[in-house]
Amino acid sequence: MRDFLPEEVRRREYVIGIVKRVYERYGFEPLETPAVENIETLLGKYGEEGNQLIYKILKRGEGEATGQADLALRYDLTVPLARVVAHHQARLPKLFKRYQIQPVWRADRPARGRFREFYQCDVDALGSTSPLVEAELCAALSEVLVELGFSDFVIRLNDRQLLTRVLNASGVDPVLHSDALIALDKLDRVGRDGVSDEFVQRGIPEAAAKKLLLLFSEVLPGLATNIDVDELNVRTLAVLEEKLRGDSHEFAASTSLHEILALVARTSAAHRVRLDLSLARGLSYYTGAIMEIALTAGDFAGSVGGGGRYDNLVGMFLGQSIPACGFSLGLERILVVMGERGMFPASLATTSADVMVSCFDAAGFPHAMEAASVMRQAGLRVLVYPDADKIGKQIKYADGRGIPFVALLGADEIAHGTITVKDLARQTQTTYDRADAGAAIRKALTERG
Amino acid sequence: MRDFLPEEVRRREYVIGIVKRVYERYGFEPLETPAVENIETLLGKYGEEGNQLIYKILKRGEGEATGQADLALRYDLTVPLARVVAHHQARLPKLFKRYQIQPVWRADRPARGRFREFYQCDVDALGSTSPLVEAELCAALSEVLVELGFSDFVIRLNDRQLLTRVLNASGVDPVLHSDALIALDKLDRVGRDGVSDEFVQRGIPEAAAKKLLLLFSEVLPGLATNIDVDELNVRTLAVLEEKLRGDSHEFAASTSLHEILALVARTSAAHRVRLDLSLARGLSYYTGAIMEIALTAGDFAGSVGGGGRYDNLVGMFLGQSIPACGFSLGLERILVVMGERGMFPASLATTSADVMVSCFDAAGFPHAMEAASVMRQAGLRVLVYPDADKIGKQIKYADGRGIPFVALLGADEIAHGTITVKDLARQTQTTYDRADAGAAIRKALTERG
Repeated sequence: MRDFLPEEVRRREYVIGIVKRVYERYGFEPLETPAVENIETLLGKYGEEGNQLIYKILKRGEGEATGQADLALRYDLTVPLARVVAHHQARLPKLFKRYQIQPVWRADRPARGRFREFYQCDVDALGSTSPLVEAELCAALSEVLVELGFSDFVIRLNDRQLLTRVLNASGVDPVLHSDALIALDKLDRVGRDGVSDEFVQRGIPEAAAKKLLLLFSEVLPGLATNIDVDELNVRTLAVLEEKLRGDSHEFAASTSLHEILALVARTSAAHRVRLDLSLARGLSYYTGAIMEIALTAGDFAGSVGGGGRYDNLVGMFLGQSIPACGFSLGLERILVVMGERGMFPASLATTSADVMVSCFDAAGFPHAMEAASVMRQAGLRVLVYPDADKIGKQIKYADGRGIPFVALLGADEIAHGTITVKDLARQTQTTYDRADAGAAIRKALTERG
Repeated sequence: MRDFLPEEVRRREYVIGIVKRVYERYGFEPLETPAVENIETLLGKYGEEGNQLIYKILKRGEGEATGQADLALRYDLTVPLARVVAHHQARLPKLFKRYQIQPVWRADRPARGRFREFYQCDVDALGSTSPLVEAELCAALSEVLVELGFSDFVIRLNDRQLLTRVLNASGVDPVLHSDALIALDKLDRVGRDGVSDEFVQRGIPEAAAKKLLLLFSEVLPGLATNIDVDELNVRTLAVLEEKLRGDSHEFAASTSLHEILALVARTSAAHRVRLDLSLARGLSYYTGAIMEIALTAGDFAGSVGGGGRYDNLVGMFLGQSIPACGFSLGLERILVVMGERGMFPASLATTSADVMVSCFDAAGFPHAMEAASVMRQAGLRVLVYPDADKIGKQIKYADGRGIPFVALLGADEIAHGTITVKDLARQTQTTYDRADAGAAIRKALTERG
């Protein structure tokens, strides 16, 4: 687990700030839940592997001796959402759009961009089955990425129901659907031959495997290919309609992909969304559309988040079905990629202060306090050097910390009510009336951007 | 532990935003540490009672069976700071001013304003023994409280070294200092008679007890008394000088209170700081000035945070002494008091969106998406009602959620590229060109404040 020193905190807050601003623009509201949940709330919700990765907290008192755990650290933000909806239902609107940006903990082996404590950025809309929900999620996510500075991304879109129909139509027995999807989910990583091999291993009949791969080869030109996504989407839907041999009315009724695409076309996600039949996104709780955002360029290609519709999960807690659709953005991965690509604005690297106040001796301290107070009122971040070290040492400190200006208070300045402002980058200095120094520094900072 | 629904999150973020802005104005930088620390880092740092209150996490794998704990939840923000300074020393400036606003966990019995998961707002300056550090802390805290809207507060100031001298001069044996301080710390709660009784119970000799209470009665007129604090401070220092019978030079050298007060007088904390000999603030790690902020008015009187100088604590981790001085603001208590006093701006109660877009049927959805997109670009938070419910039901939803405007898209509006904006409070409606609706709503919102 990581400590975040100041510059790292600023980078994280910069990204989180953009994510929040965009989500709020779409009518999502903030929710926060405790880091600690009752252990029964979490156990059994993430499969056997998940159970292993949950951090468990010893019961207090005699529990500490017996080793009994009654609490656990939050493992994701979806199960807590379902618990909140069940617990506070009377206080929540029937259409509840919430975002939640908080850390989760998994006792996993850490790797590049994967940590034991990491933040999730979840956004979910509960209470509607309308395809407008999916379309707005795509639009909001697209705006988040564009405002962060990404241009090389695509939102992969698929439908779990449609996948089921495709598998049935290809002759895969329902008991083998999960196996087929696990294999197909790896298509963009292992290629067609790899999937073919895995089909064999998993006992998918040769005829079915052939049919599936043939279908997929018609609709999947590969992520990085420079292709008109809208044209591809139309072609994909046409191929599917034909292969599934339903009349088009029946086909359309079995999936909301047509509608989602038609709505997305009117938003900032236009030309960003691509039907991708190979997208499977785990297997358990999705019931309709599924989505994943992929970066497409260079070394940094890969997923930065995913989501979809899950109309049955909340019902597990509430005993009453509530439709839901959401997306989890991979904050840590986005931060890693933005760091490697140099996408953070230079202003985030700025230091603790705009100006440092320096005195020649302790007798100057009261004047330093006053000068700092005046400059703070002018909107500056001001560090008062607290010790009467030699001025050279003080200036060296400011320089080493990247503080651009030093305000000197010597005997002359104190006698005349002035401040001498030293510009460390330009090696110039100017003396101002005490009341004017703050505005002068602000102006200089603004001009430098 | 608590879930924070949207309005509660907004209130918390409002307060945290002001705290951060003020701290940054004083040159403090943000630090974040993991929720989970190695258990050895925490055990033994908070006394025996503290050890009991630490949440301990089971070791993964076979540890789960044996009940062994190797990790623990963060208990405060001071020990993690000391660990960070020891761990990252090379990357930190020699004068390190940091703030940290994160949750901590204590397995305590919850009470009003006290929770098992609660946020601490810590601000600390490491690397200087200058009294300027204490004075700037007082100034920053004073600005935080004023900007939050408090006017009835006083910063109580004392000095642990001075307390030791007072106790010695009163004839309290050094082994009984802790007992005497524990009793004196309760002075503002139990009164002089209560303290006197506790002195007897704790074995403080009668003569010493009498001397102490006499001294305290001269310098402590009670918190709520309407008195000129600056005059009181001068008098307190004079009484102490006389009672301690040192010459004034020696007395001044034994405490930095004179200097702190002289510096504070030049800041926004002027007339806010009051010498208070009864302030003891725990006993273990403070080595100089100690501070506590007390609200003084009505039902809500009491501490909202405290701090002081602790020049030896960081050395425990680093094996090298680093002077330090800090303050922890009681966020949860501040939130409770602000809620009870109705101090939050009305704008925080606003709802999820500025405007809700409504369609008469699903054929309108693509137009709704476009209209929403245009209004979002105009800076509005827009909720698109996702289902084709009856308009009356849709408007009722917006009204119930406090959304002030509904943008209607009927056949006419779609045909003419317009939007009809319904003002729910005024019961009026106006039709705008689609491009102008956003600006019109913004204008109306601004006018209403």
